[in-house]
Amino acid sequence: MTLKLGIGMLGYGFMAKAHTNAYKKIKYIFHPFPAEIELIAICGRDKNKAQEAAQRYQYQKWVIHWQDLVEDESIQVLDNTATNDVHCEPCIAALEAGKHVIVEKPMALTLAEARKMYEVAKEAEKKGIKHMVAFNYRFVPALRLARKLINEGKLGRIYQFRSNFLSDRLSNPQAPWAWRLSKEKAGSGVLGDLNSHAIDMVRFLLQTEVQAVLAWNPTLISHRLTPEGKSCPVEVDDVSLIWLKLANGAVACLEASKVATGYKTTWRIEIHGSEGALAFDLIRGNELQFFSRRDPVEIQGFRLIHVTEPEVHDYISYWWPRGHGLGWEHYHINMLEHFLRCIATGDNVAPWGATFLDGLRCQEVIEAALTSSRQGGWIELVY
Amino acid sequence: MTLKLGIGMLGYGFMAKAHTNAYKKIKYIFHPFPAEIELIAICGRDKNKAQEAAQRYQYQKWVIHWQDLVEDESIQVLDNTATNDVHCEPCIAALEAGKHVIVEKPMALTLAEARKMYEVAKEAEKKGIKHMVAFNYRFVPALRLARKLINEGKLGRIYQFRSNFLSDRLSNPQAPWAWRLSKEKAGSGVLGDLNSHAIDMVRFLLQTEVQAVLAWNPTLISHRLTPEGKSCPVEVDDVSLIWLKLANGAVACLEASKVATGYKTTWRIEIHGSEGALAFDLIRGNELQFFSRRDPVEIQGFRLIHVTEPEVHDYISYWWPRGHGLGWEHYHINMLEHFLRCIATGDNVAPWGATFLDGLRCQEVIEAALTSSRQGGWIELVY
Amino acid sequence: MTLKLGIGMLGYGFMAKAHTNAYKKIKYIFHPFPAEIELIAICGRDKNKAQEAAQRYQYQKWVIHWQDLVEDESIQVLDNTATNDVHCEPCIAALEAGKHVIVEKPMALTLAEARKMYEVAKEAEKKGIKHMVAFNYRFVPALRLARKLINEGKLGRIYQFRSNFLSDRLSNPQAPWAWRLSKEKAGSGVLGDLNSHAIDMVRFLLQTEVQAVLAWNPTLISHRLTPEGKSCPVEVDDVSLIWLKLANGAVACLEASKVATGYKTTWRIEIHGSEGALAFDLIRGNELQFFSRRDPVEIQGFRLIHVTEPEVHDYISYWWPRGHGLGWEHYHINMLEHFLRCIATGDNVAPWGATFLDGLRCQEVIEAALTSSRQGGWIELVY
Amino acid sequence: MTLKLGIGMLGYGFMAKAHTNAYKKIKYIFHPFPAEIELIAICGRDKNKAQEAAQRYQYQKWVIHWQDLVEDESIQVLDNTATNDVHCEPCIAALEAGKHVIVEKPMALTLAEARKMYEVAKEAEKKGIKHMVAFNYRFVPALRLARKLINEGKLGRIYQFRSNFLSDRLSNPQAPWAWRLSKEKAGSGVLGDLNSHAIDMVRFLLQTEVQAVLAWNPTLISHRLTPEGKSCPVEVDDVSLIWLKLANGAVACLEASKVATGYKTTWRIEIHGSEGALAFDLIRGNELQFFSRRDPVEIQGFRLIHVTEPEVHDYISYWWPRGHGLGWEHYHINMLEHFLRCIATGDNVAPWGATFLDGLRCQEVIEAALTSSRQGGWIELVY
Repeated sequence: MTLKLGIGMLGYGFMAKAHTNAYKKIKYIFHPFPAEIELIAICGRDKNKAQEAAQRYQYQKWVIHWQDLVEDESIQVLDNTATNDVHCEPCIAALEAGKHVIVEKPMALTLAEARKMYEVAKEAEKKGIKHMVAFNYRFVPALRLARKLINEGKLGRIYQFRSNFLSDRLSNPQAPWAWRLSKEKAGSGVLGDLNSHAIDMVRFLLQTEVQAVLAWNPTLISHRLTPEGKSCPVEVDDVSLIWLKLANGAVACLEASKVATGYKTTWRIEIHGSEGALAFDLIRGNELQFFSRRDPVEIQGFRLIHVTEPEVHDYISYWWPRGHGLGWEHYHINMLEHFLRCIATGDNVAPWGATFLDGLRCQEVIEAALTSSRQGGWIELVY
Repeated sequence: MTLKLGIGMLGYGFMAKAHTNAYKKIKYIFHPFPAEIELIAICGRDKNKAQEAAQRYQYQKWVIHWQDLVEDESIQVLDNTATNDVHCEPCIAALEAGKHVIVEKPMALTLAEARKMYEVAKEAEKKGIKHMVAFNYRFVPALRLARKLINEGKLGRIYQFRSNFLSDRLSNPQAPWAWRLSKEKAGSGVLGDLNSHAIDMVRFLLQTEVQAVLAWNPTLISHRLTPEGKSCPVEVDDVSLIWLKLANGAVACLEASKVATGYKTTWRIEIHGSEGALAFDLIRGNELQFFSRRDPVEIQGFRLIHVTEPEVHDYISYWWPRGHGLGWEHYHINMLEHFLRCIATGDNVAPWGATFLDGLRCQEVIEAALTSSRQGGWIELVY
Repeated sequence: MTLKLGIGMLGYGFMAKAHTNAYKKIKYIFHPFPAEIELIAICGRDKNKAQEAAQRYQYQKWVIHWQDLVEDESIQVLDNTATNDVHCEPCIAALEAGKHVIVEKPMALTLAEARKMYEVAKEAEKKGIKHMVAFNYRFVPALRLARKLINEGKLGRIYQFRSNFLSDRLSNPQAPWAWRLSKEKAGSGVLGDLNSHAIDMVRFLLQTEVQAVLAWNPTLISHRLTPEGKSCPVEVDDVSLIWLKLANGAVACLEASKVATGYKTTWRIEIHGSEGALAFDLIRGNELQFFSRRDPVEIQGFRLIHVTEPEVHDYISYWWPRGHGLGWEHYHINMLEHFLRCIATGDNVAPWGATFLDGLRCQEVIEAALTSSRQGGWIELVY
Repeated sequence: MTLKLGIGMLGYGFMAKAHTNAYKKIKYIFHPFPAEIELIAICGRDKNKAQEAAQRYQYQKWVIHWQDLVEDESIQVLDNTATNDVHCEPCIAALEAGKHVIVEKPMALTLAEARKMYEVAKEAEKKGIKHMVAFNYRFVPALRLARKLINEGKLGRIYQFRSNFLSDRLSNPQAPWAWRLSKEKAGSGVLGDLNSHAIDMVRFLLQTEVQAVLAWNPTLISHRLTPEGKSCPVEVDDVSLIWLKLANGAVACLEASKVATGYKTTWRIEIHGSEGALAFDLIRGNELQFFSRRDPVEIQGFRLIHVTEPEVHDYISYWWPRGHGLGWEHYHINMLEHFLRCIATGDNVAPWGATFLDGLRCQEVIEAALTSSRQGGWIELVY
């Protein structure tokens, strides 16, 4: 008999849309898939919006208290796409109720929360419960190829990791105040929202740990107006600058910004090693650049690889013909397919997916970055 | 009561997959959508494959004769993604049976077929039947913006249209023989398969007609081996070169190639006018470049527009957040949404979608190109 | 005793400036150089301008009749940068007077002229006289590397050669009439001015000959105003389109345009073969892109080679440190250094430089293109 | 009577070559130029090399003690391209001897030296003596345009300045030890050699001062072999990371690296403001990208400006025809033309050229960066 996986969705924003879209596509894209996926319930604070989302996406029901998801017997998977302040409690409750849990990044509002969540997840794991943090960029075929080339030693000793995650979302001083600018709701600004991706990517690609953190998280625009015209203080950073000392001896520079006028969603990653280099930009997410010092000098140069070869590049064979490529939508689908498949087969979520341990490691760096930015010096991490 | 649109799918290849994916997504992406979409039947010559496709994509049934689709009362829409030699007869039968029809490009194997199909479609239209040729690139937001800028006179008088549709599919002399290389099955080679897109795009973007055609359709690799190891002649072109005199006085150069080593699916379009210019490349399909001579000389340059602004760019508001972009999959969905919506609302398929008249116009140029290439001189088109 | 090479410069426009600059730099850049270079005389029709040029560039004298250059005993090299209608006679006279001759491209106004010039050059060659046509792009390090890779078989069998030489010089309908638009002065328009470079580059890079020519040389803007406000007919093409059948079986598409709004001086060259591909753009002239099908599929992609490695790339060791690159100015210097060095050492100008034979071959294609454009069919070339 | 400017060149490396080339070209490129330029003497420690350089570049004499340049009455301009440890003393002596002085960057080995040099220069200035630090990138037309657009308010309030100066010079662990890796000779590593350019560019483009510095200057490869095979410690940084708080409220991130495998000489500069953004990369030095939020949203995007318009872009009218562009060589020529012209006309070197005051300001940041990297916290600058 086919396994049934009932989904309980917490949140109805664009991320819930992206994840729901995934649950609808997994079955016929990743065919044959070892489970049936059922959209059981969607939950949100606004009754009308929850109802509309349930109708639009064909969830069997809608609820307004997350506890109703946790208590629902037909739900096996809690998908938490709520705001950062509603990550900790529902995730813990769901795990304790024996549900598999995926949560949006950053995993938690604070390091203390993340630690608690991880402890509960570790216990649940003993009973076969899976947990994942939605670091979706681990499922970009081009970044998978990057990891593979690094693993094979194509870059030699790693010298530098550079990340620039650039958005202009807040460039306009008239852009309105929103929950993401509140310390209480968001924990941090671009640090948690964008640089968390970079922190996870350092660990995913280089497979090393962070030893020390130096950070500067300035707030360039100190006040914004709410849609109602009230001036509110911006309590979190709009630029996040981090330097990392890595256990493998490499140097990482991570920048994230939402005042990077001109860029909607540009995420450049560059890695330099003794034998080669890699470059990636999310805005052209099907492409990976690879430079090898082992090529004859005469023809050395960055190769622009279009990572869309079904035979050799991860995930492509499931999707569209060679050359057509994937996008933002598909990284989420690949990610959720991995999570559900691990649930179905019992395989480990790591190393391809980020577990709550990975989420915790990321949160430790975020916390260190907050401290460093306040104090102005290096923070050592101890594991 | 909501209108029900039953889909009959002819073909089970990658194009059927792309179209089926569209039918599954329209409802929750283009919400609220004015019809219910039902996957009734999928048809293909190989019984096992048809059955597997029906299971995978959840069609209610599978058939092996296209006539069964035409006769099925629960089907209102025939979607013909079969090989070019199975376009004409099923489309005509379906139109005559009162079904709406969408057919893959090129519309037909020959001009004579296309004329017949158009005549039948014209009659059917009087009874409210809709017809469309699947020129999906009309539904790329960046190309929609291109058309808008041209319409607004931002390019002034148009001088040149340049198209290079480049693929390396046949670069390897060891790439096997396939149906696309047979004159009988395919009609022509890259001319019909790729340059048909360019011919349609000239008409769509410039809104002018072709007056004369000069063409060269060489076959560079004359024989290939079948998977069974038999040497077969390549009966169609692997490079298609066309010059067009356009009614608006402009000059068009259309190149398509499947021996363009290095390029998987690159389609560059450039348009030069007295006041400005546009450049597009399908491989970076969310981007449009626009140059204006009306800018101050000091800062003149091609703007790289990331065509992902929900407020101002076509289709974006339905999809993912600003900056994330669409891809090959989504152009098909946008296209089929337009077709089904026109069926539901009675709106015209043209000018946004290509009708059978547009398909015919394209086929006239294809036929002229075949003649010109044989004879070596200009062919005038008379309408 | 060091050889002295006295230069007689015919013309004082920007090309004379570029060539004079070369003569001044050769000695200390290509150190040690086997000859002394002396700027003897500069010649032009306007007395004041000739005088000013002589002062500016420190020529020993200025003259207004080219015959004075030919008769001057202290001149060993005639450098002809005059308009196309003043190429034939002075070159022949100089060759017959025992002077080495370099002439700007296109070599002549007509094929008949080119033939005469070549015959005289062939005779002069027997007496050790050197002749060259100023196809300066043969001296771009990146294109030298392209030729080397092709010669080494890195591209396998050549399928296609594509050239787009794009300028917006005439995009503005108000751009004034000038001598280049007169049939009598220029012979042809962008065909001779820009596409001549492409024709020579096909032969230089692929080392094959042209077998047949199909061309279309439209004039999009038929009249222009002189600076004095008089309307003059444009007698030559502003777009030049050429298809070539090559002796090696390859297909060449050459486009040149001066109504390519948005591009100042863009020259894209792409070459596709069974094993690899090359791409070049003059606007980024230090870069060559190289794609190899022999790379593992996983990492196949165009390498962006920065052709500035002193140890392995032509000409770089003479110039600036690694990574800094050369530009338009330097290609002329490299070219003239080659010419003067051949004079000094007796080495052959070919194959690196274009001789009058190469110039003639180019002129044959130009003439065939003019005929084909008039008649509308293929023109076979017979050698 | 025309002013004569006798040049005394200290050093005979590639920078001396670039500067000498400039002195040879200024007269006919910047015609008419208000002075005669004479190459009097070249000085270097190695007698044979000095002699060879004098012959190659046609200096009237060669010397091996810099004092001989200072004492030479026929020399009016000392051009100091020697290693960093030979900047201070010769410059001061020359200034005190009434000679105009240009010195390579970084101006000095230490802040103390720079202060002394500046004090002497300030005195000399009273007698009409000119002084300049060779920050040649101030003379790149594209960066001049950047400054102009910023000055005109096209970027609004400046948020961020990002600089990545990337070289692979030291990527290979086998690259030999050289004087630049010695603390005593070089003062610092990429900090002084490359990041000094970035520090100067922040000040030049934004016209603001640095308020505080946080830096990390790691040495990734701790030992290297001399050409003789002896292992030597690398005493300076091979990566230089700096964050700056600027007086205008903006945030600057400056990275320089010589272990950036894959990049020969890439220098990316990006500036984000409330109204627009700029992007530049030295490797494509004729191009500037400009984004304006004041454009209609529909067509917003980075314009790729080819900064080669003689009528509107600095320096172009002196050089080659529109579209052809300049390179590394020309920035030095433009710079030295400015310096000599200021000497001839009495005009101020600032703001276009960097004076010793600008050099000192840069050195203050370098010193603060060294201190910060050692201590790990912010260093405030007081003026």
